[in-house]
Amino acid sequence: MENKQHMVIFQPSARRGLIDEGTNLIEASRQLGVDIEALCGEKKVCGKCKVRIEEGFFEKFGITSKKENVSEWQEEEDKFFNAEQKAQGYRLGCVAKVHGDLLVFVPEEARAGKQVVSKAARDIPIEWNPAVKLYYVEVEPPSFEEPTGDFERICRVLEANHGLTGLTVDWHALKTLPRILREGKWTVTTAVWMDKEVIRFWPGKKEDCYGVAIDVGTTTMAAYFCNLRTMEVFTTTSMMNPQCKYGEDVMARITYHMMNPGGLETMSKDLFDGLNSLIVQGCESTHPKKKKKKKAEDGVDSISEGAEVEEEVVVEEAVAVAGNPGGNGDTYLRLAPEDLLDMTLVGNTAMHHIMLQLDPEFVGLAPFPPVIHRSLDIKARDLGIGINRSGYVHVLPNEAGFVGADNVGVLIAEEPYKGEEMQLLIDIGTNGELVLGNKEKLISCSCATGPALEGAQLSYGMRAAPGAIERITIDPETHEVNYKVIGRDAWSTYSKPEEMKTKGICGSGILDVLAELYAAGVINKSGRFSKSQKSNRYRKNPDTKQPEFVIAWANETSIGKDVVITQKDVRQIQLGKGALYTGCKLMMRRMGLEKVDVIKIAGAFGTHVDKTKALIMGLFPDCDLDRVLAVGNAAGDGARAALLNREKREEANWVAVNVEYIELTVEGDFQQQFMEAMQVPHMKDEFPHLEGVVPPEILHQK
Amino acid sequence: MENKQHMVIFQPSARRGLIDEGTNLIEASRQLGVDIEALCGEKKVCGKCKVRIEEGFFEKFGITSKKENVSEWQEEEDKFFNAEQKAQGYRLGCVAKVHGDLLVFVPEEARAGKQVVSKAARDIPIEWNPAVKLYYVEVEPPSFEEPTGDFERICRVLEANHGLTGLTVDWHALKTLPRILREGKWTVTTAVWMDKEVIRFWPGKKEDCYGVAIDVGTTTMAAYFCNLRTMEVFTTTSMMNPQCKYGEDVMARITYHMMNPGGLETMSKDLFDGLNSLIVQGCESTHPKKKKKKKAEDGVDSISEGAEVEEEVVVEEAVAVAGNPGGNGDTYLRLAPEDLLDMTLVGNTAMHHIMLQLDPEFVGLAPFPPVIHRSLDIKARDLGIGINRSGYVHVLPNEAGFVGADNVGVLIAEEPYKGEEMQLLIDIGTNGELVLGNKEKLISCSCATGPALEGAQLSYGMRAAPGAIERITIDPETHEVNYKVIGRDAWSTYSKPEEMKTKGICGSGILDVLAELYAAGVINKSGRFSKSQKSNRYRKNPDTKQPEFVIAWANETSIGKDVVITQKDVRQIQLGKGALYTGCKLMMRRMGLEKVDVIKIAGAFGTHVDKTKALIMGLFPDCDLDRVLAVGNAAGDGARAALLNREKREEANWVAVNVEYIELTVEGDFQQQFMEAMQVPHMKDEFPHLEGVVPPEILHQK
Repeated sequence: MENKQHMVIFQPSARRGLIDEGTNLIEASRQLGVDIEALCGEKKVCGKCKVRIEEGFFEKFGITSKKENVSEWQEEEDKFFNAEQKAQGYRLGCVAKVHGDLLVFVPEEARAGKQVVSKAARDIPIEWNPAVKLYYVEVEPPSFEEPTGDFERICRVLEANHGLTGLTVDWHALKTLPRILREGKWTVTTAVWMDKEVIRFWPGKKEDCYGVAIDVGTTTMAAYFCNLRTMEVFTTTSMMNPQCKYGEDVMARITYHMMNPGGLETMSKDLFDGLNSLIVQGCESTHPKKKKKKKAEDGVDSISEGAEVEEEVVVEEAVAVAGNPGGNGDTYLRLAPEDLLDMTLVGNTAMHHIMLQLDPEFVGLAPFPPVIHRSLDIKARDLGIGINRSGYVHVLPNEAGFVGADNVGVLIAEEPYKGEEMQLLIDIGTNGELVLGNKEKLISCSCATGPALEGAQLSYGMRAAPGAIERITIDPETHEVNYKVIGRDAWSTYSKPEEMKTKGICGSGILDVLAELYAAGVINKSGRFSKSQKSNRYRKNPDTKQPEFVIAWANETSIGKDVVITQKDVRQIQLGKGALYTGCKLMMRRMGLEKVDVIKIAGAFGTHVDKTKALIMGLFPDCDLDRVLAVGNAAGDGARAALLNREKREEANWVAVNVEYIELTVEGDFQQQFMEAMQVPHMKDEFPHLEGVVPPEILHQK
Repeated sequence: MENKQHMVIFQPSARRGLIDEGTNLIEASRQLGVDIEALCGEKKVCGKCKVRIEEGFFEKFGITSKKENVSEWQEEEDKFFNAEQKAQGYRLGCVAKVHGDLLVFVPEEARAGKQVVSKAARDIPIEWNPAVKLYYVEVEPPSFEEPTGDFERICRVLEANHGLTGLTVDWHALKTLPRILREGKWTVTTAVWMDKEVIRFWPGKKEDCYGVAIDVGTTTMAAYFCNLRTMEVFTTTSMMNPQCKYGEDVMARITYHMMNPGGLETMSKDLFDGLNSLIVQGCESTHPKKKKKKKAEDGVDSISEGAEVEEEVVVEEAVAVAGNPGGNGDTYLRLAPEDLLDMTLVGNTAMHHIMLQLDPEFVGLAPFPPVIHRSLDIKARDLGIGINRSGYVHVLPNEAGFVGADNVGVLIAEEPYKGEEMQLLIDIGTNGELVLGNKEKLISCSCATGPALEGAQLSYGMRAAPGAIERITIDPETHEVNYKVIGRDAWSTYSKPEEMKTKGICGSGILDVLAELYAAGVINKSGRFSKSQKSNRYRKNPDTKQPEFVIAWANETSIGKDVVITQKDVRQIQLGKGALYTGCKLMMRRMGLEKVDVIKIAGAFGTHVDKTKALIMGLFPDCDLDRVLAVGNAAGDGARAALLNREKREEANWVAVNVEYIELTVEGDFQQQFMEAMQVPHMKDEFPHLEGVVPPEILHQK
């Protein structure tokens, strides 16, 4: 029995195709390659996936679209739409199901934006010892006296000259050997993995080979392409995690898996497709630039049934590398994906599990046991990853259910276990992952910072994409606002309203907002709006009756609505910073520490945040300001270290076992500590050294 | 540009389909699943692939077939057809190419027969130590105090109870773990490969697991299905090697590879398809019998375009095993292919290479170096072999270009390297493979016995299939012949002519023929037909003018022609037995031996041959008759030993390196020895002990 299908068209992208009866509009948008925001993972609570059903006969497409062609209005939708919007045909994409032909308009605010990703590789010291090494071999041709087979003929030399014994060989590589050995006139270069297995042959002499280290974040993915001989990073590519359409945070994706049979495989496949895009783009960047193919996007009348959308990949550096061993003056590496012989992967435990199709349900349930801790070496062909099919993908180990391989990456990059200094490593993503310790002992914990610190799940929170507010000041006298958005250098007071095209507030702007709201007296210490408001920016929302503060007026935005901070939003930020601070505090108590020697903040948040404001607002515990360091994408650095030095892989497995994971919520006074930590700013007596550094009006404000 | 295609129909099977313009009829028959004999591998020399182009309009099929619809007559065809046959439309399938619609009749003699294969497992002592073992594990559920992940939780017990450390896990197996562990209420059985890698999990306790050992012969393949706990062989299946259609012997197949781009992959795929048929049939035999599906065969008007032909698989034993651990009184194992967790493979070097898509060209060129000697462990999923996808296929090592993994199998089954006795191991296939030695030293050689000793490439040679002459006597007085065919118990003198349905002579009948021709005085010592012929069975062929002797008159055959032995056939047999004897002789000389202690003959030839006649005819060197042993399919036994005892795998790698391969043809007096060895029978002074055992008229005949 075949399912009935209907024509569904999304505007403004005009993507269209036949969709099964009963499919919801979020799922339909996925099938047609239209990205609609679905922050809560279709739990009908975030209200991000607003769409509008257009009515009428559309001659261009030959369909009649009616509001009756979707499923009935549901109670959950009431809180996101007023009567007028309801009349206009607004619906939640996760609620409305296809029952007939439809023309669906996706408002800009509901379109999943493309994030500006900045994940260049840092210069960290790595000792050369890659898992894949090349060995050049010359052999005698076979004779009746010595008719030994091709592979053993080579192995004999590898053993004599390099001490490699008991080598195995990948089947696909072996198939190429007889021709290559004769083409090279009995000289051959072998690529050997972990001194164990030959994974590729070339005729004659070859000096360079290549690999890629990838950090799979919940939101973004970054790939670092390395020459395995010189250790040089010759290209970096990055893109959104394609799983974002299944939900913004890991819990939403775990829920998607639990609610959708086959959802795990779908999310995994999407991720691998994304990784393959990164790989292809990274390789393409080593060729002379071709004219860029025009992307089928908005306004193009593309006919698609489950259309493939080219994911947008950001290439950090266009590459023309000198000294290409290929010679002939060509300065391009001209790599193909099969030239990548090794790959390392890091990601949090949920990403790790979803990627590898390991049931993530139990990682989301107390006591959060992962399916596996130790690192995995899986043939690229098994995963369907498009590096050389004989190569391995090395997936770094997980510490615990909420402290994954990405944290292990941070640790092997920063190596707190090698020194005396008491280091606090903070990786703020949707979850905060914390490690505290030195060579004597390391403990880790995870704290539910929530997505607020990254700018998500606030009324106008968004990713760090063009139009996102990233800096803000509020005049204490007038409560007037001045702000800056990503993608425009001029601040709002220096711009015409229509030039701002503001869309929302991103993570690095959030702390600014909280600090400024407090410093200007808009909110008080407990986070509540104060009684003494000085502008019409403060108001009660006519619908929700909740107090809110307008950051940007509708005429400054591209979404046609005031961008506001609500009382609930302030609470969300307080919860996030409180959780993080409590995590740090309780970890220090466990270790008997008053103060840490160094705080290292990993991730984009650390790079963008104003560390003085962060300290004052009470995000981190007390520390000398010049010892608060942003270490960038340390997880990616760890992946790269494991790519270029195989001993780092052993170190990672050691770390994963030897970092003690602490479950903080079971501490007796957790709630008490948490409540205190939510105060804005944090109690000043904990920051005596800030006197003189920080403006007194902030430090001493009651 | 698409190729033009024509409808080609083969009779009597009525298989039909569209075939590309210019395809020869052998290739067309392959594509349509019709097996035509192609003994020489399309070199246009064997003349086996005779077909007849039918003329006229065939209403049933709606086509008009004309002789003009195939390519022009070629010179090579002249020697196989007379003018009358040419007029009737006879052509060689390897010559005639499709240029239009065709109805092609395949005469019975050209149809590739299905061989009667008899490859039951022998009872050889094997110590229990399989590569795959099961371990039952009980663990505590995770808690906040002990939230260790699933896999590590299990590994801890495996290490404590069984000393297994550093275990890895197959990705596909790992994916099943979280559900299975919870389904089993924190008890689980693990299958561990080589104490290294976990390849499967089951909830709760499981005791038995299964594997299969397969011997890939040039002509036939046999699979032995074993319980890896009890070591019992619960089913044996066997079938023709599907590559036979590309040529009868290894050189023909190597030629096919060299002449046809992609031919190597095609032959490999056919072989794997065949192995998968063996596996499926073996598993099906463990279920209650289903009504057998009627096979689409002769006379069925099946429409097929590149139709799949079900290969005929012979199941030796239908299985209803007692004590099935599944319980509930069901005595059937009810295995699925995924229940097979391990597999071992043996085959000669060319089969090994073609199977694994390793270029076999150089194995066929002096000094015959193989691509690899050592054993390979390849994931079943990589090869596309349908046992459990996480399981490994263990391919045994090769000794040399002409002494392959099958010979290694024979050695680890017979273990000549463990005793004092000087053993001579003879494996007669299309090539003779010989090993001589004891625990002090082992040498091996290959001798080009040619296919004559197996009944191939003689005028009426054929495989051991129904209708093949397997026993014969010739009356010395009258030169009248009495013979027996496979598939009929009654000898010819006790049968009506039309009851015999003779088709040709198979390997086990060949030596009988030679011995009887000599004993009856039809041929003399040098192999030439003697002057004193006593019947009209001796004649000169009217076409070739060559002398020949009629074994079966046309009215006793199903091919409508006299089955004869020609002078050239006798030469072929002499060449074969001469090559074998010379090999044995020169090996003994190398070792300084006059006589060997034991002769072991492996393969079907050894089982069927009359060893007295063989000794007299000079097939083997002198040995006590009761020390000449047929050891059956010792190569298969070796594969089974390696399946059930992993130490046998190490032993095999040791043997492959430590057997010294001797190239005999470079010995100075090789030609001289060879000429002498071709005499019929062999010089009697080499067999003094046969006096009194053998009829004097044979032993002393001049």
